[in-house]
Amino acid sequence: MNEIRVGIVGLGRLGKAHATNIAQNVPGAKLVAACSFVEDELEYAKRELGVTETYTSYEEMVDSPNLDAVCIVSPSGYHPEQIRLAMKKGLHVFSEKPIGLDIEDIEKTMEVIQAYPEQVFQLGFMRRYDESYQYAKRMVDEGALGELTVIRCYGIDPSSGMEGFVKFAQSSYSGGLFSDMSIHDIDLVRWFSQKEISRVWAMGKNAAYPELDDLNELETGAAMMQLEDKTMAILVAGRNAAHGYHVETELIGTKGMLRVASAPEKNLVTIFDENGVVRPTSQNFPERFRDAFVNEMKEFISCIKEKRRPEVGAIDGLQSTKVAIACQQSVETNQIVEVK
Amino acid sequence: MNEIRVGIVGLGRLGKAHATNIAQNVPGAKLVAACSFVEDELEYAKRELGVTETYTSYEEMVDSPNLDAVCIVSPSGYHPEQIRLAMKKGLHVFSEKPIGLDIEDIEKTMEVIQAYPEQVFQLGFMRRYDESYQYAKRMVDEGALGELTVIRCYGIDPSSGMEGFVKFAQSSYSGGLFSDMSIHDIDLVRWFSQKEISRVWAMGKNAAYPELDDLNELETGAAMMQLEDKTMAILVAGRNAAHGYHVETELIGTKGMLRVASAPEKNLVTIFDENGVVRPTSQNFPERFRDAFVNEMKEFISCIKEKRRPEVGAIDGLQSTKVAIACQQSVETNQIVEVK
Amino acid sequence: MNEIRVGIVGLGRLGKAHATNIAQNVPGAKLVAACSFVEDELEYAKRELGVTETYTSYEEMVDSPNLDAVCIVSPSGYHPEQIRLAMKKGLHVFSEKPIGLDIEDIEKTMEVIQAYPEQVFQLGFMRRYDESYQYAKRMVDEGALGELTVIRCYGIDPSSGMEGFVKFAQSSYSGGLFSDMSIHDIDLVRWFSQKEISRVWAMGKNAAYPELDDLNELETGAAMMQLEDKTMAILVAGRNAAHGYHVETELIGTKGMLRVASAPEKNLVTIFDENGVVRPTSQNFPERFRDAFVNEMKEFISCIKEKRRPEVGAIDGLQSTKVAIACQQSVETNQIVEVK
Amino acid sequence: MNEIRVGIVGLGRLGKAHATNIAQNVPGAKLVAACSFVEDELEYAKRELGVTETYTSYEEMVDSPNLDAVCIVSPSGYHPEQIRLAMKKGLHVFSEKPIGLDIEDIEKTMEVIQAYPEQVFQLGFMRRYDESYQYAKRMVDEGALGELTVIRCYGIDPSSGMEGFVKFAQSSYSGGLFSDMSIHDIDLVRWFSQKEISRVWAMGKNAAYPELDDLNELETGAAMMQLEDKTMAILVAGRNAAHGYHVETELIGTKGMLRVASAPEKNLVTIFDENGVVRPTSQNFPERFRDAFVNEMKEFISCIKEKRRPEVGAIDGLQSTKVAIACQQSVETNQIVEVK
Ligand SMILES: NC(=O)c1ccc[n+]([C@@H]2O[C@H](COP(=O)([O-])OP(=O)(O)OC[C@H]3O[C@@H](n4cnc5c(N)ncnc54)[C@H](O)[C@@H]3O)[C@@H](O)[C@H]2O)c1
Ligand SMILES: NC(=O)c1ccc[n+]([C@@H]2O[C@H](COP(=O)([O-])OP(=O)(O)OC[C@H]3O[C@@H](n4cnc5c(N)ncnc54)[C@H](O)[C@@H]3O)[C@@H](O)[C@H]2O)c1
Ligand SMILES: NC(=O)c1ccc[n+]([C@@H]2O[C@H](COP(=O)([O-])OP(=O)(O)OC[C@H]3O[C@@H](n4cnc5c(N)ncnc54)[C@H](O)[C@@H]3O)[C@@H](O)[C@H]2O)c1
Ligand SMILES: NC(=O)c1ccc[n+]([C@@H]2O[C@H](COP(=O)([O-])OP(=O)(O)OC[C@H]3O[C@@H](n4cnc5c(N)ncnc54)[C@H](O)[C@@H]3O)[C@@H](O)[C@H]2O)c1
Repeated sequence: MNEIRVGIVGLGRLGKAHATNIAQNVPGAKLVAACSFVEDELEYAKRELGVTETYTSYEEMVDSPNLDAVCIVSPSGYHPEQIRLAMKKGLHVFSEKPIGLDIEDIEKTMEVIQAYPEQVFQLGFMRRYDESYQYAKRMVDEGALGELTVIRCYGIDPSSGMEGFVKFAQSSYSGGLFSDMSIHDIDLVRWFSQKEISRVWAMGKNAAYPELDDLNELETGAAMMQLEDKTMAILVAGRNAAHGYHVETELIGTKGMLRVASAPEKNLVTIFDENGVVRPTSQNFPERFRDAFVNEMKEFISCIKEKRRPEVGAIDGLQSTKVAIACQQSVETNQIVEVK
Repeated sequence: MNEIRVGIVGLGRLGKAHATNIAQNVPGAKLVAACSFVEDELEYAKRELGVTETYTSYEEMVDSPNLDAVCIVSPSGYHPEQIRLAMKKGLHVFSEKPIGLDIEDIEKTMEVIQAYPEQVFQLGFMRRYDESYQYAKRMVDEGALGELTVIRCYGIDPSSGMEGFVKFAQSSYSGGLFSDMSIHDIDLVRWFSQKEISRVWAMGKNAAYPELDDLNELETGAAMMQLEDKTMAILVAGRNAAHGYHVETELIGTKGMLRVASAPEKNLVTIFDENGVVRPTSQNFPERFRDAFVNEMKEFISCIKEKRRPEVGAIDGLQSTKVAIACQQSVETNQIVEVK
Repeated sequence: MNEIRVGIVGLGRLGKAHATNIAQNVPGAKLVAACSFVEDELEYAKRELGVTETYTSYEEMVDSPNLDAVCIVSPSGYHPEQIRLAMKKGLHVFSEKPIGLDIEDIEKTMEVIQAYPEQVFQLGFMRRYDESYQYAKRMVDEGALGELTVIRCYGIDPSSGMEGFVKFAQSSYSGGLFSDMSIHDIDLVRWFSQKEISRVWAMGKNAAYPELDDLNELETGAAMMQLEDKTMAILVAGRNAAHGYHVETELIGTKGMLRVASAPEKNLVTIFDENGVVRPTSQNFPERFRDAFVNEMKEFISCIKEKRRPEVGAIDGLQSTKVAIACQQSVETNQIVEVK
Repeated sequence: MNEIRVGIVGLGRLGKAHATNIAQNVPGAKLVAACSFVEDELEYAKRELGVTETYTSYEEMVDSPNLDAVCIVSPSGYHPEQIRLAMKKGLHVFSEKPIGLDIEDIEKTMEVIQAYPEQVFQLGFMRRYDESYQYAKRMVDEGALGELTVIRCYGIDPSSGMEGFVKFAQSSYSGGLFSDMSIHDIDLVRWFSQKEISRVWAMGKNAAYPELDDLNELETGAAMMQLEDKTMAILVAGRNAAHGYHVETELIGTKGMLRVASAPEKNLVTIFDENGVVRPTSQNFPERFRDAFVNEMKEFISCIKEKRRPEVGAIDGLQSTKVAIACQQSVETNQIVEVK
C-alpha cells in the first residue's frame, strides 16, 4: 500500500513531537502538510521535516487533495470542530486528548465520527501504548492479579513547570486540574477495569501557590471514585512534584498488586553519593512517553492500512471528559457527584 | 530508681510479645504478674518469663500490692473499663489500641485518666516508635517536605490470614475494617499533619471472599478524608494482600514526597531468579514492628521513671476511634460523613 | 544530502535487527542490498524491508554501484577481510564487534582503514549508545564521581539460552567466554577510564554444565584487571543467569559510585505477589539494547553525512580483543597475563 | 541456671556497644567487670551499666572470682594473649575479630583453646548473626541458589571517617586494608561456600588520599580469589564511600543470584525530592549491625548455658587472617599468592 499522507494542525509543545514522529519514526507515513498560527513553526516544518504544504487555516488544509489523514494537536477547545470537519472531508483523524471540553459538543462530534465508519478515528491516550502499561494490561487481562478492587493513579507535573503554568493559566483556563491532568488517569481506570465510573468526590489544596486560588486552579488534588461494580479508584493530580514528572498507576487485585512506575525512574542508572542511593527521575511527558507517542502513531497508520479500528475511540473521550467534569463539580460543591 | 513492676492482662497474639519484651528487652522493667483466661498462657508466663503472680481475674491482679503499672492487651472491648480500674488503683497504664469501641465509654475513660495526672497513660500506637516512621516524622517536622498536602496510608493484612479471620469474624465482630485495621493509619494522619480530620467518604468491595458480605465485613476498603485545613488523606485497608503485610505511608508536601515502606521489604536481601528481581516481604505485624513494640514499651517505662507524659495519649485514642466510626457509617450510607 | 544507501551482510540473529533499523528507523538511510547464505533471509529482506539487490556473495555486493556503505553482521571470523574489501571499494563501513579474532589480522585491517581516512569506520559497541550508559559517561566526564578507582562489569546471558549455546559450541568455537561475552565490558572499562588495561587474571567454573569442560567453554568466569594507572577492573561473565540477561556496570570513584542496571529491569512495572516484590527482567540483548542499536546506526549515518569520525573505531576493536585473548590465556595458565 | 557474669576488656568504639548489650540487651547475662586504660570509660561503665568491678589491668580482672566469661574488645594485637590467659583461668571467651595478627601466635592460641573444650570460645564475626545474612545462608543451604560459582563482597567505610583514619594510621598500623576491612568478607566467603581459599591476587589505588602511600595504607583495594573447588571470590574494600557504610555481599549460583544489601538502605524510607528518588543510607557499623551485635552476644550466652559450641570459632579466625595476610603480600608483590 502507498504511504499514508498526513497533515498536522498544531506545532506547539506536543505538536512538534507528533510531527517529527510522523515524518521520521513511523514507517508508512508521510508528513505532507502542517497548519499553525506561528510562522516560525511552519518554517521549521518545511526545513526540518520536509513538509511541502503549510497553512494558517485549518479549513484550507483539510481541502488539500494530497491528504489521507489529519493529526490534531491544537488547543483542546478546537478539537471537536476540527474532528468533524476532517471526517466530513473523508480524512482519517488522530486527535489529541481531550476529545472536547463540553459534553454536548462531544456528543455531536461522536455522531459525525459514527457516520463515517470507514474512516479511522483515534484519540491520543498514548499511555495505553506505553510498554509498561501494555505489560500491566496483559497481566490484568490474563487474570494474574485476580479481580481488581482498587486502582490508584497519580499524575503530577514537576514544580519546575509551575511558573510557566501560572502565566498560562492567567490568560486561558486549563479546564481545571482534573480535566487537564487526570484525564489520562480516568482513561486508565476505565481501560484496566473495563467498567464505568459512577460517583466521585474530589478536593484540592493550594499551599505553595495560594495565587492559584484566584485563578480557580489547584496545586494538588485528590479524587475518590466508585465504579459501577464497586471497584474503587483513587486519583491524585498535581503540578508541584519536586522530583519531576510523577505518573504512577497501581492495580490492587484479589491475587496480587502491580505498580507501573512506582518511582519515575529516568533510566537504569543508580547513583550512590552523599545524598544516599539515588535514582534520577523523568522530568516531563515527552521524556517519559517518548516511545508511547511513536507507538500510538504507528498504530494509527496501521489501522488505516489494515482497515482496523483503534482500541481507543470517541467513546473513551466522552466518558473521560464526563468524569473529569464531575470531579471539577465535586471540588466546587465539596459533595459526591454522580456521573451520568 | 527501682525497677518498674508490671502486670499484663492478655497473653494472646500480641500479649505474648509485650510480655516477653517487658520481661527481657526493656531494662528497668520487671514483669511480675499476668492475667488471662487461658491456663496454658499463665503457665508459659511463669515458666518462660519468670512471672510470680498469675490471675484469671483482672480485678484481683490490679489489687496486688506488688504492681506499679499494667499493660492491657485484652480484647478491645475491655480496654475502657480496665483502664479506669487501673488508674483508680494508682497504677500507670499502657493500653493497646483502640482505647475503646464506643465514644461515650471512651470519653468517660478520658475523664478518669485526666483525674490522675501523676500516673502515666500511654496508648499502643507503636508505629510512632518505629525507626522509619520516626525518621519520616523528623523530616516533616524539620520542614524537609514543606507543607503537607496529601497523606496516603495503606494497611493490608496478608491473605494467608484470611481463613482465620473469617472464622474469628463469625464468632465476634471486629468493629469493621476501618476500626480494626485503619485505626493506626488514622493516628498517623493526625500525627504527621497535627490536624484533625473533618469529613470522610469510605467504601469497600468483597471480591474474593463474598461470604464477608454476610458478616458485614470488608475484604478491601478505601477512604478519602478532608482535614480541617484541607489537607487530603487517602486510606486503603484490606485483609487480602497476596505478598504479605503491606503497611505503607506516603507524605506529599510542597517540597517533596516521602514513603515509608513503599514495598514491605522483609530484610536487605534481593534475589535474582526465574521470577525476576525479588525482594522478600514482611508477613505480619510482629515481624514488621518488632523493634517498635520494644521501643514503645521502653518509652512507657522511661516516662514513668522520668515523670514525663508519652506523646501518644487518650485524646489520640478518642479521635482515631471517632474517625474510624465515621468511616464505617460512610460505608453503610455511601455518603460523606462529618466527623464531630 | 541524499540518502545513504546501505548494503548489509549477515541477516541472522542480529543482522535482521540492524537491517530493520536501517530500513525503517534511521532517517536518511536506505537499505538497498543484502547478502546472506540463507535464501529465506534474502526473501524476507526483499519482501519486508524493500531491499532491491540480494547477494550470496559479499564480493559481488560490494561491487554494486548503488552502495555508499556496508553494515557487516556476519560471523566474527569474516569481519577483517570484509572490512578491508569494503574500504578498498570506497565504502563506509559499520562492522559488528569483535573487529576480528586474531591480532595480526586486525592490525592488517587497521592499516587498511587508516589508508582511507575519508571513509567512516564504526565498530558495533552499541552499549556506548545506550541512554543509561551515556548518562553514566556524562557523569564521569563531568567529574561527578571524582577519579575512578574500580570498574565492575557483569555480562551474563540467561540460562534459557544455554541449551542452544551448547549445540552451537559443539559445531564452532565461540572464541571463549571472554572474547564472546566480555568484549563489550572490556570496551566499557576502556571507555569510562580512558586508560588501557595492563594485566589480567581470569578464571572460570563449570558447575551446572560440566559438559562445557570438553568444549573448552566456561559457564561462568571472572577476571580482575589492573589498568595502566592502577585503576582496578572486575569482570564477571557467564551464560547461566536464571533471571535473564544481566548486564550491569559499576563505577566506583573518589566522590561517588554509580551503577548502570544494578538489576536488569525490563520495564517500569513492579509486581507484588506471593513471591514478594518482583521486578520483571530483560531477557536478551535485542530487548535490552533495542534503542542503542538504533542510536549507533543513526550515529553511523550522521558521521557519513557530516564527515565526522565515530568515537568508537578500529583501535577500540584491537585493544578489546587483545585483552579478551589475554583473559583466555590466563584461564588456561591460571597465571597473571600481561597485555601488550 | 544462674546469670552468666561477664567481664569486658576494651570500652572503645565497639567495646562500649558490647558492654551495653551485655548489661541491658542480653537476658541471662550480667556485666560485672570492665577493664580499660581510660578512667572515664570505667566511670561510665560503673555509672551507666552497673558494673561493680573496674580494672586497668586485664590480668587482675581475669583473676576476679566473680567472673564466668570475658568479652575481649581491646586492640587486635592483644587478642591472642588475652584469650590464652582467660582460657587458662577457666573462663568462657568471646573475642572480637581478628583472632590475632600473626599466624604463629594464632596457632599457639588455638592450641590453648582446644585444651579447654568445656569452655566456650566465640569469635566476633557478627555478620553471621545479622538477619539478612542468616536469611541468605538458609537459602544457600537449602539449595535455592544451586551450586555457588561466584561470591562478591564489598566492605567500604564512609569517607566521613577518612580524616580520623589517617590520624589513627599515623600512630599505629591498621594491619592493612585487607586485614582491617576485608576480614569479615573473607569469613563470609568461607561461611557461604564451606570451602577454603587457595589463591589470591590483590591490588589497590590511592587517588583522593595520596598521603596513604606513605603510610602503606590503601584507600580502595580489590582482590580476586580462587577457592579450592574453583569457586571464584571477588572482594572490594575501601575507606572512601561518599554515601556511607557500604557492606554488600553477592552470591551467584547455578540456579539464581542473591544480594545482601545491594544498597546500604538505612531504613524503609524513600524520599522523592529535587535529587530524584532517594534511599537514605547506613553510615557505620554500629548502625548497620546493631541487632547482629546483640544476637551474637545472645548466642555466646546461650552456648555457655546450653554447653554448645558456637559455629564461629578459632579456626575461622586463623583461616581468615591467613587469607588477609596473603592479600597484603599480593598487593606488595603484585603477584598471585598461594594461601597455605
Ligand atoms: N497526550 C498528552 O500527554 C498531551 C500532552 C500535552 C498536550 N496535549 C494536548 O495537545 C494539545 C496541544 O497542546 P500543546 O501543549 O502542544 O499546545 P501549544 O499551545 O503548545 O500549541 C498549540 C498549537 O496549535 C496551534 N493553533 C492554535 N489554534 C489553532 C487553530 N485554530 N488552527 C490552527 N492551529 C492552531 C498553535 O499555533 C500551536 O502551534 C492539547 O489539546 C493538549 O491537551 C496532550
Ligand atoms: N498494635 C497492634 O498493631 C495490634 C496488633 C494486634 C492486636 N492489637 C490489640 O491487642 C489487643 C489484643 O489482641 P490479640 O490479637 O492479642 O487478642 P487475642 O484474642 O489473641 O488474645 C486475647 C487475650 O486476652 C485474654 N482475655 C480476654 N478477655 C479477658 C479478660 N476479660 N480478662 C483477662 N484476660 C482476658 C485472653 O485470655 C487472651 O490471652 C486488641 O485490643 C487488639 O486491638 C494491637
Ligand atoms: N553487539 C552485540 O551485542 C552482538 C550481539 C550478537 C551478535 N553480535 C555479532 O554479530 C555478528 C553476527 O552474529 P549473529 O548472532 O547475528 O550470527 P548468526 O549466525 O545468527 O547469523 C550470521 C549471518 O551471516 C551470514 N553469513 C555467514 N557467513 C557469511 C558469508 N561468508 N558471507 C555472507 N553472509 C554470511 C549468514 O547467512 C547469517 O545470515 C557476530 O560477529 C557477533 O559477534 C553482536
Ligand atoms: N566486629 C566489627 O565489625 C568490629 C568493628 C570495630 C572494631 N572491631 C574490633 O574491636 C576491637 C576494638 O576496636 P575499637 O575500635 O573499639 O578500639 P578502640 O581503640 O576504640 O578502643 C580500645 C579499647 O581497649 C582498651 N585497651 C587498649 N589496650 C588495652 C589493654 N592492654 N588492656 C586493657 N584495655 C586496653 C582501651 O582503653 C579502649 O577502651 C579491635 O580488635 C577491632 O578489630 C570489630
